[in-house]
Amino acid sequence: MQISLNSVTVKEKWGLPELIEGCARHGIPGISPWRDVLGAMGVERAAKQIRDAGLTVTGLCRGGMFPAHDQAGRDAAIEDNRRAIAEAHAIGAKCLVVLGGGLPPGSKDLPGAREMLREGLAKILPDARAAGVTIALEPLHPMTCADRSVLSTLGQALDLCDEFGAGMGIALDVYHVWWDPQLATLIQRAGPRIAAFHVCDWKVPTTDTVFDRGIPGEGCIDIPAIRRMVEAQGYDSFAEVEILSRHWWQQDPEAVLPLLKERHATAV
Amino acid sequence: MQISLNSVTVKEKWGLPELIEGCARHGIPGISPWRDVLGAMGVERAAKQIRDAGLTVTGLCRGGMFPAHDQAGRDAAIEDNRRAIAEAHAIGAKCLVVLGGGLPPGSKDLPGAREMLREGLAKILPDARAAGVTIALEPLHPMTCADRSVLSTLGQALDLCDEFGAGMGIALDVYHVWWDPQLATLIQRAGPRIAAFHVCDWKVPTTDTVFDRGIPGEGCIDIPAIRRMVEAQGYDSFAEVEILSRHWWQQDPEAVLPLLKERHATAV
Repeated sequence: MQISLNSVTVKEKWGLPELIEGCARHGIPGISPWRDVLGAMGVERAAKQIRDAGLTVTGLCRGGMFPAHDQAGRDAAIEDNRRAIAEAHAIGAKCLVVLGGGLPPGSKDLPGAREMLREGLAKILPDARAAGVTIALEPLHPMTCADRSVLSTLGQALDLCDEFGAGMGIALDVYHVWWDPQLATLIQRAGPRIAAFHVCDWKVPTTDTVFDRGIPGEGCIDIPAIRRMVEAQGYDSFAEVEILSRHWWQQDPEAVLPLLKERHATAV
Repeated sequence: MQISLNSVTVKEKWGLPELIEGCARHGIPGISPWRDVLGAMGVERAAKQIRDAGLTVTGLCRGGMFPAHDQAGRDAAIEDNRRAIAEAHAIGAKCLVVLGGGLPPGSKDLPGAREMLREGLAKILPDARAAGVTIALEPLHPMTCADRSVLSTLGQALDLCDEFGAGMGIALDVYHVWWDPQLATLIQRAGPRIAAFHVCDWKVPTTDTVFDRGIPGEGCIDIPAIRRMVEAQGYDSFAEVEILSRHWWQQDPEAVLPLLKERHATAV
């Protein structure tokens, strides 16, 4: 696998122009922007600069986030996802990474929120298919179920893939799935539907449910074992490094990028 | 269901003698000690005082914690579990709550740690059967997989119950399982093997992976919906309140116990 760098990994230090230039200069062949930095740079300009730099866009982060208290909120999310699909198409992204979204604030209706996710996917899938953009469902760790993702397991994501068929895939992040007792079986079940493979590490102890990820090798996840499972399903493109970390965000990307390249070679 | 109080809920303010007296005085008919407070009071003395107060012991917390780097560590855990079984028998506990334990420090071998859990259970089950003590496997939230529990899902616990048969059951804590997309199916599968039902709540946001639980009604878990699923399987004894919370530990138990009784009536 080649290495790809997700923009959130250096979000405190670099915008997208710096990230594109930095990846090219450091010999990192893949890139995956979040929509905030893409919007700040401008989609057309970013598309051209990424092309000129010869980088592969391994994904656009992120669509989804469908649950909302009222129909207007859900409709707004669907419209926003349509814009995300257009952006993913414009920059030639391999997929649009789609998150479940959390419970609407104050809600305790988890089955209801999951149904809103399902309905949202049904609404945007025709647009994604028309644009040739794969919807890559990314289950997030169950500790984010309340406020970020009612899509909690690889099994749940695959059930949605089974239901909706063509145009749907999986974004598999080791951080979110490493604990799953069914992991090996579920990766086999995913098969060719693995559209993206994300790496980082689980620190021991972990002091924040969102912003305390480690770089590969810093924690307790057997990343190479999971990579081998993914490769056994025929996935052989990129391992995308996505680190949400208050610690790593403070470091100089000129030092972080070489370190991530080294960890890609030794710990992924 | 009746209410039971787990000793950890008031651990900063009360030892076991105060808890027994306080539960009896506040009309809380169930109690569940951790082994630290039980040991501090003395097993015989505690057993007598609990009996005299007319309280039901809904569980003893906790056994398990089998994974260790070397055989001596694993043997020590098994011996400790045998003592725990004897203590559970001595106080007439409905079950011994058994946790998975985390990865041995520095280890990345999650399948290996899970196998150590399996081997540990095989070793202690004859003792538990002989003592008439149910081993209640409690899956913990996946966010504790690294340092507390490689037993991560209800499905994984039920697989172990299926394998080992008589003498094994489940301790189902809403905090640990509420996010599971398979929850309804798994509770049906558990059936009469539900040996304990624990309640607390998931706060939004949650600021600590262990010590930030809410009291029932304080968070986003639809506790009554899960209670109904559990009752549909014939479980009708106690809902045990187990709160690990730096906030609630600072409060006066004389105020906390009435509040928990009220929440038991309105939010469980």
